[in-house]
Amino acid sequence: MNFTASQALFRRAAAVIPGGIYGHTTPAATVPGAVPYFAAEGFGCRYRDVDGNTFIDFMGGYGPMVLGYRHPEVEAAADAARARGAAFNQPTPLLVELAEKLVGRVDFADWAVFAKNGADLTTWAVMVAREVTRRPKILKIAGAYHGTHAWCTPGHGGLIPEDRAHLHEFPFNDVAALEALFARHRGQVAGLILTPFHHPAFADSVLPSPGFVAACNRLCREHGALQILDDVRCGFRLTTNGSHTLYGYAPDLAVYCKALANGHPISAAAGRAAHQVAASRVFLTGSYWNDPAPMAAALATLDIVERDRVPERLERTGSRFVEGFLALGERRGLPLVASGPAAMPYLRVKDDPSFLRTQRLCAAAVAEGVFLHPHHNWFISAAMTDADIDDALHRLDRALVAAGGRA
Amino acid sequence: MNFTASQALFRRAAAVIPGGIYGHTTPAATVPGAVPYFAAEGFGCRYRDVDGNTFIDFMGGYGPMVLGYRHPEVEAAADAARARGAAFNQPTPLLVELAEKLVGRVDFADWAVFAKNGADLTTWAVMVAREVTRRPKILKIAGAYHGTHAWCTPGHGGLIPEDRAHLHEFPFNDVAALEALFARHRGQVAGLILTPFHHPAFADSVLPSPGFVAACNRLCREHGALQILDDVRCGFRLTTNGSHTLYGYAPDLAVYCKALANGHPISAAAGRAAHQVAASRVFLTGSYWNDPAPMAAALATLDIVERDRVPERLERTGSRFVEGFLALGERRGLPLVASGPAAMPYLRVKDDPSFLRTQRLCAAAVAEGVFLHPHHNWFISAAMTDADIDDALHRLDRALVAAGGRA
Repeated sequence: MNFTASQALFRRAAAVIPGGIYGHTTPAATVPGAVPYFAAEGFGCRYRDVDGNTFIDFMGGYGPMVLGYRHPEVEAAADAARARGAAFNQPTPLLVELAEKLVGRVDFADWAVFAKNGADLTTWAVMVAREVTRRPKILKIAGAYHGTHAWCTPGHGGLIPEDRAHLHEFPFNDVAALEALFARHRGQVAGLILTPFHHPAFADSVLPSPGFVAACNRLCREHGALQILDDVRCGFRLTTNGSHTLYGYAPDLAVYCKALANGHPISAAAGRAAHQVAASRVFLTGSYWNDPAPMAAALATLDIVERDRVPERLERTGSRFVEGFLALGERRGLPLVASGPAAMPYLRVKDDPSFLRTQRLCAAAVAEGVFLHPHHNWFISAAMTDADIDDALHRLDRALVAAGGRA
Repeated sequence: MNFTASQALFRRAAAVIPGGIYGHTTPAATVPGAVPYFAAEGFGCRYRDVDGNTFIDFMGGYGPMVLGYRHPEVEAAADAARARGAAFNQPTPLLVELAEKLVGRVDFADWAVFAKNGADLTTWAVMVAREVTRRPKILKIAGAYHGTHAWCTPGHGGLIPEDRAHLHEFPFNDVAALEALFARHRGQVAGLILTPFHHPAFADSVLPSPGFVAACNRLCREHGALQILDDVRCGFRLTTNGSHTLYGYAPDLAVYCKALANGHPISAAAGRAAHQVAASRVFLTGSYWNDPAPMAAALATLDIVERDRVPERLERTGSRFVEGFLALGERRGLPLVASGPAAMPYLRVKDDPSFLRTQRLCAAAVAEGVFLHPHHNWFISAAMTDADIDDALHRLDRALVAAGGRA
């Protein structure tokens, strides 16, 4: 497998783009030189890079492709909308239908709004919490990702101290630390922003303890703070109706994005009636937000996720994959550690604090035609059949040997 | 003309969406009750609402539809890209081609990045200016719109004082005020963010004076501050190569969006080689940003804008419209005031500080099948022929009478 065309394109890119490829898909976050840098075509759970290499895809565009690339029903719905035009002076009826669909689907939701990026709405939710409470402070899980806006970016460039003057972090699952923050900032906390489980980069995923979820619910209630669930990565992937139902969170606001429209650009926030008027006071808009095609795609995707019981399917497919990969690791004397829900698993080599052996394994997986990321959770796709998983495991067995396992 | 279906949909919307319709397309910003609230279909320079009313469209989705709805070449390019997939794990070669295209087109640009919303990149440009200069302060035209992020939103909800601790406003074209701000904050100004001309809502547009442009260029240079041109609304509409060339600005960073891809969701920022490394340190990303279809649409749109000399066409078409409408106003004894470039004109009734007569005129225009906005600049489309303009003027002549002009 060679990446000649990827590398040539990257040299061109580096001349005209800061960093060549920026953001979460930068090759620097994976295993530089051992992975494709540019994609050409996707189909189902596979994609082809610009060198003609084909991969079974365990990243799905870092989440959006929950049903697989080019899903015929989703594309037909989007095409039908697009054939009538885009970016109108007014929304189309699809806006209302989609809001009604979300309100019908998500138990606590009385209303919804839509944008393009997850961060459009995590940031807006923070502002709504401030508007509702007339308080400034936001509590956030240390290491949790909510976008690249100044208040939450994992980057270091371009920040000033005021960006985070009222942001306070605590370790995930640490009830005492969370209680201490609420106590220290009594009467000043507008909101607590959470991901359903902790899925930081460069670390194992961590599921919430029941005590932590209960404490989040209790402390928000006692202190009159809004609970904001950043369900951007997990939403409609772990359950059909929002990830809070899986773990028992009681959110006031939730933000959805990646699995909402199978790759079409749309994000959503949902909230409670008590905050609807305050939410209407936090101005929110963007140039392309009336575009009906992503709304049509979201309606289709939400229907398919429910009709085909996609979360159950992802859990079952993911379990087959995770259990199979763990067993292969044992057999090849390269034991692996799995974390996160089976639908969004993350596996790494055991006893590998530097991630060097995990990087080596992921590079070997790529060389065998399986795209895995060494530092970011993976995404099971509903397009994956048992045969696809077995194909992937067969390839990963060879990758384990190539990465230092027993032949 | 009735809006029964629009009104029925709005009642449904109000139940499940804060404000019913939020953002810049809220009917509250136009003439509530006298305009369509929901669109159904667009074609060329016309669109149809959900009640079956058809309008000659002078808003173009508030800017994006520079070539008109459903432009066959743009849609073909986007469709061809979409047929190969979306939201990949890596960018496609279109990312590099589009960056190269912009760098070739915009004289000062050595690099480019792409996002979804204009505000993704006006905000990022502010962060880049802070990263380059290691200074906090941003100077901004009072009343200029740069998006709905906390540092710049025209809204009032959800803000805390820290959001604008280092934002300082000055009146457009006021050289003395700008000089005073630079002097007062000497050594602290990271950037000056400008729109090419001043196009505030609820006011006439104002073109920049040559002295103001020269002062912006000189003061940024003398004080080592970056000049950020927010060309979101004007870019590739007034000229083929960025609006700074029309007025003489010397930007360090420019942001493009609305006319970039004829309605497909993409925005761009361009900058100078001297800032490329610093820009790479300001983390920037979003879930759907590798989607190739909007990049294909942007490449097609940029080519068409140049090939068909679209800015010249918009200027000529706009002049025919503005001159015709002004003459009709005189003839009907309802004199109008025009402002802004002919490609993005804004007309209102003379001596109308409350805008009530302008609202009445725009409502009458809508009733005659011409969509005009009483409080926001308009957008000429390249899909408009002389016959379309004459059709619009014929209708507007009736609207002037209906709005109180001489019969």
